[in-house]
Amino acid sequence: MAEPRVPFDPQRFDWAGVERREYKPIPGAGGARGMGFSGVTRQTLARPDDLTAGYELRYFEFEPEGYSSLEKHRHSHFVVVLRGEGRALVDHEVVDCRPFDAVHVPPLTPHRWLNVGAGPFGFLCTVDGARDRPQPLDDGEWEALKADPATAPYVF
Amino acid sequence: MAEPRVPFDPQRFDWAGVERREYKPIPGAGGARGMGFSGVTRQTLARPDDLTAGYELRYFEFEPEGYSSLEKHRHSHFVVVLRGEGRALVDHEVVDCRPFDAVHVPPLTPHRWLNVGAGPFGFLCTVDGARDRPQPLDDGEWEALKADPATAPYVF
Repeated sequence: MAEPRVPFDPQRFDWAGVERREYKPIPGAGGARGMGFSGVTRQTLARPDDLTAGYELRYFEFEPEGYSSLEKHRHSHFVVVLRGEGRALVDHEVVDCRPFDAVHVPPLTPHRWLNVGAGPFGFLCTVDGARDRPQPLDDGEWEALKADPATAPYVF
Repeated sequence: MAEPRVPFDPQRFDWAGVERREYKPIPGAGGARGMGFSGVTRQTLARPDDLTAGYELRYFEFEPEGYSSLEKHRHSHFVVVLRGEGRALVDHEVVDCRPFDAVHVPPLTPHRWLNVGAGPFGFLCTVDGARDRPQPLDDGEWEALKADPATAPYVF
C-alpha cells in the first residue's frame, strides 16, 4: 500500500509529493472574453485514479491581487478556504470569505475568485472527476453583471 | 439562488446552518466487533442533493480521547485535517496527523481515527455520495492487527 499520509508543510504551504502547477494549462482559454487570470496556482491533492473514487480535490492559491477566470460550467464547485482573504463573484452575489468559510458554486453559475488580502489566499475545491470544461459567459450574463455596480468591477 | 457562502464561526468551530450530528445514527453498528466509537460528531457541509454533484463533504470532530469505529468499506476516504492532533490506523500503518495533513484510506482498508491531543481534533472528509455501508473487519484482518505490537492498541 502507498503511504496513506500526505504531510503538509506549513512553511511552504504545500503537500509532500504534490506538484504546484499553473492554474490552467492554456492561458486565458484561447483569449475568450473574461477568461484571463493572474497569479494562481493549483495543487491536486487527490484525483480519481489514485483514489478509486469519483471526485477530485484541489488546492488553489492566489497571490495578492491574483484572480481566476470569469467562467461557468455544468459541474459544481464546493470550496473551503484555508488561508487569507478572498472574494468571490457567484452569479450576481459578491461574497467575502476567510479561513474555513465554505462557498458553493452551483451548475452553470458565472463565477470568479479574487485575492483581496495582503497575503496569499487559498482554498480547497472539490469537483466531480468527470466534468465539463469551463466556458465563457454569454452576452446576456456579461451585460447584466456589467450593468450592476456591485458586480461590474469583477467583469473584465 | 441560495446564499452561496456558508460562513464559518471560529469560536464555535461550526458552519452557519449546518447541524452538528452524531457520528453514526446506530451506535456501534449493532454491537459488531470493533464498531464502537466515542466522542465524535459529524457536520455535513455538502451533499449531492444540494450540490448537483456526486460527492459529499463532511467535517468530523473528536473530543480528547475520542475515536471512531474500526471498519472498512469499498468507498475511499480522502481526509484533510483542520484542527488538533490525530492518529489514524490505516491498514497496518499508524499515522499521526496535524492541520492540513491529508490522509488517504483506499477501498476495503481497515481504519480507525483517534484524537491524541489535548483539544478537539477535526478533519474534512470527502466521499462519493453513492457508497456502501461500513463493515467490521474479518477474523484474519483482526488477528493480524492484534498480533502486531504497533497496531494492537487500536484493535478493540
